[in-house]
Amino acid sequence: MSNLNPIDFPIGIGDDMAQMCFGGLDTALITTDMLLDGTHFDLSIHTLEQVGYKSMAESLSDCAAMATIPFAAVVAVALPKGFGSDQLKEIHKGLLKSGDMFGCKLIGGDITTWGDQRAKLAVNVTVLSKPAATPPIRRSTAKAGDIVCVTGTLGGSIQGKHISFIPRVKEALEIARIASPTAMMDISDGLSTDLTHLTRLSNVGAIIDEALIPISEAAANTRFPLMAALNDGEDFELLFTLSEENFHKLCDNWRMDTPVTSIGRITGKKVLIRYNDGSLKDLLPRGYDHLRNEL
Amino acid sequence: MSNLNPIDFPIGIGDDMAQMCFGGLDTALITTDMLLDGTHFDLSIHTLEQVGYKSMAESLSDCAAMATIPFAAVVAVALPKGFGSDQLKEIHKGLLKSGDMFGCKLIGGDITTWGDQRAKLAVNVTVLSKPAATPPIRRSTAKAGDIVCVTGTLGGSIQGKHISFIPRVKEALEIARIASPTAMMDISDGLSTDLTHLTRLSNVGAIIDEALIPISEAAANTRFPLMAALNDGEDFELLFTLSEENFHKLCDNWRMDTPVTSIGRITGKKVLIRYNDGSLKDLLPRGYDHLRNEL
Repeated sequence: MSNLNPIDFPIGIGDDMAQMCFGGLDTALITTDMLLDGTHFDLSIHTLEQVGYKSMAESLSDCAAMATIPFAAVVAVALPKGFGSDQLKEIHKGLLKSGDMFGCKLIGGDITTWGDQRAKLAVNVTVLSKPAATPPIRRSTAKAGDIVCVTGTLGGSIQGKHISFIPRVKEALEIARIASPTAMMDISDGLSTDLTHLTRLSNVGAIIDEALIPISEAAANTRFPLMAALNDGEDFELLFTLSEENFHKLCDNWRMDTPVTSIGRITGKKVLIRYNDGSLKDLLPRGYDHLRNEL
Repeated sequence: MSNLNPIDFPIGIGDDMAQMCFGGLDTALITTDMLLDGTHFDLSIHTLEQVGYKSMAESLSDCAAMATIPFAAVVAVALPKGFGSDQLKEIHKGLLKSGDMFGCKLIGGDITTWGDQRAKLAVNVTVLSKPAATPPIRRSTAKAGDIVCVTGTLGGSIQGKHISFIPRVKEALEIARIASPTAMMDISDGLSTDLTHLTRLSNVGAIIDEALIPISEAAANTRFPLMAALNDGEDFELLFTLSEENFHKLCDNWRMDTPVTSIGRITGKKVLIRYNDGSLKDLLPRGYDHLRNEL
């Protein structure tokens, strides 16, 4: 039985996961996410299995965000009055469904029940991951001149993707292996907000192009498809930056079904968007605000 | 950057913490606890700093339960409408207060807000710990003939101790060092319920003596002091078993202020209590039921 001292924490609050380096050679990362009925899911629409699936998948998306490999999870649930073992089994089934997809084992948990008759379900998942062949990729290390990329398509997630998405764990590991991205995160709060986070933490700016944003079919069917793609949130796609040379390497070697799209460039100090009419405007962070529960 | 594979999970669901053994020599343990307004604290009585303190302390008590050393924590909060950074600061202050006591660093977190106007605060803390000089002590390894002990005094925690207790991390490490306990856990659901858990998992029974139960002052002032000590819960004291020889060793070498009391013995297959009138009766698990939110 070894003593782990001293333990070092090279990555802390502000990134997708925190990193711990143990005394030996081992290093692990950790993320925790609380999902709430009425905010992240809606039990009048979604099944408990879907809720379990999403609760785990959201933390797995954080593992993807740093190009790390999830290996273990613990879960805590706050049950509404009247919930019992039948409901727990459904949540558990969903948790295992997304966890098993990436070999992430559920190793512990806590069950508690609200006293209040009207209180709603909350599910908290904590996931541990380990680095792959590359070091964990941070949000704060984008460089001037880098290309800005996203996986998949954006917007309209609320129409269904947000509850059933597949976390981009495999894509992230492949991007890291092929193309050494300089910075990466997952898009959970909306591209406008998450790109603002990434550039601010990296002390850089960016210009993205309206014409390049990959708008999802779900967003295309809304009144303002571009706004949906920029601000809807819960896309759970990857936002990453890399050198132009590595971008070409990525394009040449990308064999996965999930598309990778260049949407702009890291440059200057502000975050701007070039509209199709040629105008260049501030890209305001209009995604999810964690303190307001509003888009 | 090392790859941790293969990772082994020698202790899983059912104990105070789950254990992970990494590919190298390192091993870590993890626990997660969800605390709810109206169940574990009451914002009409308690300050947010007290809530933060207790939320961390409850997980630290799990670290004590296995005689392990806490080193890192992540926290997720579900905020009621109207809460903002001022409230977060108070919770944070409390979290640091109990974490700092044992060198447990807060390294990450998640903040979300309920959509519902009436929804209440939930705080989820996940703590990682490492083994001390001894292997983690489990619930399931009590042996026939062992002495059953508790730290501190029991009952009436709701009168104040439950929100301000000091987790028995130091006591647990000292007990483990001096006296090689065979099994240990913390008393969170009430002695009657937790002794039932421990004996069932160990496939043994126990007889405890009414005369030996250390009743707290708070419990002594209630109508049924013994019932309070047996069933109240949230004592956050240690319940442990050890050989008679090691019990004497512990008594001879115990220098800490917190009392250690022998309350009975592991024997047979049932959990019994010997009352002061000489009668021997089943000790029914009348503590906290996690699926019912009831004592």
